[in-house]
Amino acid sequence: MSEPKALTGQEVEARLAEIPGWRVHDGRLRRELKFPSFVEAFGFLTSLALVAERMNHHPEIYNVYNRVTLDLVTHDANGISKLDFELAAAANKLSSAASG
Amino acid sequence: MSEPKALTGQEVEARLAEIPGWRVHDGRLRRELKFPSFVEAFGFLTSLALVAERMNHHPEIYNVYNRVTLDLVTHDANGISKLDFELAAAANKLSSAASG
Amino acid sequence: MSEPKALTGQEVEARLAEIPGWRVHDGRLRRELKFPSFVEAFGFLTSLALVAERMNHHPEIYNVYNRVTLDLVTHDANGISKLDFELAAAANKLSSAASG
Amino acid sequence: MSEPKALTGQEVEARLAEIPGWRVHDGRLRRELKFPSFVEAFGFLTSLALVAERMNHHPEIYNVYNRVTLDLVTHDANGISKLDFELAAAANKLSSAASG
Repeated sequence: MSEPKALTGQEVEARLAEIPGWRVHDGRLRRELKFPSFVEAFGFLTSLALVAERMNHHPEIYNVYNRVTLDLVTHDANGISKLDFELAAAANKLSSAASG
Repeated sequence: MSEPKALTGQEVEARLAEIPGWRVHDGRLRRELKFPSFVEAFGFLTSLALVAERMNHHPEIYNVYNRVTLDLVTHDANGISKLDFELAAAANKLSSAASG
Repeated sequence: MSEPKALTGQEVEARLAEIPGWRVHDGRLRRELKFPSFVEAFGFLTSLALVAERMNHHPEIYNVYNRVTLDLVTHDANGISKLDFELAAAANKLSSAASG
Repeated sequence: MSEPKALTGQEVEARLAEIPGWRVHDGRLRRELKFPSFVEAFGFLTSLALVAERMNHHPEIYNVYNRVTLDLVTHDANGISKLDFELAAAANKLSSAASG
């Protein structure tokens, strides 16, 4: 994979519309999700883990019971890159069971 | 959990309407599912695994890429029991991403 | 399951020897684990998720790449209970691939 | 990824020593594994799923409770290729909890 570049703040803001539910928090893309139960939450995390491993780009995951918080950043680029938008879009597509 | 009893063939047939997509195959409840890709198929299997572990009642799983075949039977009852219908119903609820 | 009771601070300290690698942090049991890669880390989390769902007692999970932090507390007991020690012991048993 | 080529029967036999526990069955590499319980079996399958997704080369999986059967073949090559040996070696590395 070619080296990802950090997007500028303006570029990030402009692209947030592509990934509903996500915002910039502490220099990363963040989304908080709530599922019906742990069963759906962890199934979602497993699907996301597969996408992340294929991309070789992994999220920061926080989970307790039916709640999941994801933080995305590209350490090699020292910022948010297009890889983060790609992973965020994949997460949105996989999280149909989530609300909030 | 109280001992599950095998349902009669008539009882099984009568309850199949509760679990669309399932049929009796070789003395067990069977459903074949097809997902958009391995990512969704394995996320589904993980959610199902969690339900199965909670119930202490585990499916027979066959998976290759985006295809999953589930076979359900209650060995202790030497037949299909209400536990199998419960697990089948849970599988249906979790498999919204599947077709076929 | 019967209601779990919070252990006293003294009881918690006395039992920490049962679960090597864990310490009390901010009123909860905490362990930080480091795996060879994401592949082993997430396989471990899936096994732990299954144990947690069976116990109906779920950890707080933080994961990024090969690192996992687990925080255990019993909200219903408003403290650390024997359920947390049980889950911690199960995590230790499942984390043979981890260091640190 | 470059196109994988089918190995000859002789090549396959010669390389089986690299992957203890595997044999040729019906034109594919097969291994049967037995884990202490479903918890370890499914954690193993999740780790293997991550490796498979990264390789874009997926096993045929059969699982019931603590038993797992894996069949590996390269459909595009119409036979067993080096990808199958690579995936088999990864499975062996991840299955330390298994016997049999």
